[in-house]
Amino acid sequence: MEETRIEDPITELIVNYNELNRPVVEELGEEPTPLEFMRYVAKNTPFVARGAADNWKATQEWSAQFIKNHLHGETVNVAVTAAGNADAPTRREDGTVVFATPWEEQQPIGEFLDYIIQQEMKKGASGNHSEVRYAQTQNDNLRNEYASLFGHVQKDIPFARIALETEPDAINLWIGNSLSTTALHKDNYENIYVQIIGQKHFVLLPPHCQPCVNEQDLPSSQYVRSSSFGGLELVDMPSTVPFATWDPERPAENATAYSSSVQPWTVTLNPGDMLYLPCMW
Amino acid sequence: MEETRIEDPITELIVNYNELNRPVVEELGEEPTPLEFMRYVAKNTPFVARGAADNWKATQEWSAQFIKNHLHGETVNVAVTAAGNADAPTRREDGTVVFATPWEEQQPIGEFLDYIIQQEMKKGASGNHSEVRYAQTQNDNLRNEYASLFGHVQKDIPFARIALETEPDAINLWIGNSLSTTALHKDNYENIYVQIIGQKHFVLLPPHCQPCVNEQDLPSSQYVRSSSFGGLELVDMPSTVPFATWDPERPAENATAYSSSVQPWTVTLNPGDMLYLPCMW
Repeated sequence: MEETRIEDPITELIVNYNELNRPVVEELGEEPTPLEFMRYVAKNTPFVARGAADNWKATQEWSAQFIKNHLHGETVNVAVTAAGNADAPTRREDGTVVFATPWEEQQPIGEFLDYIIQQEMKKGASGNHSEVRYAQTQNDNLRNEYASLFGHVQKDIPFARIALETEPDAINLWIGNSLSTTALHKDNYENIYVQIIGQKHFVLLPPHCQPCVNEQDLPSSQYVRSSSFGGLELVDMPSTVPFATWDPERPAENATAYSSSVQPWTVTLNPGDMLYLPCMW
Repeated sequence: MEETRIEDPITELIVNYNELNRPVVEELGEEPTPLEFMRYVAKNTPFVARGAADNWKATQEWSAQFIKNHLHGETVNVAVTAAGNADAPTRREDGTVVFATPWEEQQPIGEFLDYIIQQEMKKGASGNHSEVRYAQTQNDNLRNEYASLFGHVQKDIPFARIALETEPDAINLWIGNSLSTTALHKDNYENIYVQIIGQKHFVLLPPHCQPCVNEQDLPSSQYVRSSSFGGLELVDMPSTVPFATWDPERPAENATAYSSSVQPWTVTLNPGDMLYLPCMW
């Protein structure tokens, strides 16, 4: 047996954790019971329930055309960025890294969907799409902005409501294409994520990997649509935001002494799949 | 509002925890369901279920005389110490502090019970009891040493067995008097403690109070009954034991910079009461 001399307690924690926990998201064939769910909450460990939302009306009936028809004439809040990274560390042209908040604007639902679909279809081709659009508000939008679609999903996740003894704080619908990316971050909420259309790839780190993500106070900035040329400009804001600057998908950049010890947990969701994303992951 | 300037992150953690959590063990009027129990496990928070074991045969029928009759002619393993502190930091006559393991010997059950009862009755009087005796083995003794008494208690705690999906690793019966003390320590087990006769006072610290307990590598030593004069001698052992040296009941001694921030949780159990003592507390 190879003897490893470990001097740093944080490295020791991460290495010991890796030895005891394979970085594999457990797969369930159906929704857990409240008690089964609570065991995952107690362990603060994710799982994916494959196909648990297969029989939701949303999973069975939604398509771009369906949503276009259903929300015909309405506008939706769209986050616009240069490269798809909203609320993310972003390198400016002068080389400095800032925390970039997206430009938000109301767009007619049809125009928004046509844009992201055409961008997806032309991906790789010499694109004339100079920006990435992502409907990604997190303000309980499925019970507000998209309220007319709310009846197509379960009004809550019963196993989680019963186990946690609380109604959902927010229920959100997010619509994007393969350029939509969410920067490495953590939330102080227990999350149940359900895939309705397409796929989403998750890269997850356990909470004890905090020393690996190189959190820094980044100057804040915001994308603003120029009134002159219509494109996006990054405007400085008078504050800083503490944010992870290490990206497990570009592990050589912005690494800390601990980053190389991380074993990310990856999982891809398909339509009908349900992910428990524990708080602080 | 008084402004507090906090510079140390550990102090900040302890102070924030204290502000968000009153150090009061929650009281239930009956056993929790497995799901209710799992919520406490997930929060790693103790509770006491008052009277939850009121109808156990042990709670209803056991007395010193009952146990004497029931185990008549048997011997039990007794831990003997000078002052009641088994497996505890102990100050030797030369002033050094060592980790003292008790002397263990087999004693007839009647002799053991008579000793601890008479010692209790004479407490405060000029005692001729030069040692403290405590039947405190932790090797699943209620399914071994005391197997004939095992039928008088539940064979497990159903809410815990169902919630944790495991049988008890060990079921122990401990018999002592008011001099029996257990030093501040932590276990890597979820514990359900049930009081059958008398009272037990618990002083509990959450796991994040580890920096407060002044853990030190103590020289190991063991009480040995002298073959010449029959009393106890403390004998050096060739090892050290990492152990908490701060005692929340003597907070001025052996304190660390963090000890004064601790708010211990105290609870007293009466016969029939059941305490959930979370792992690592």
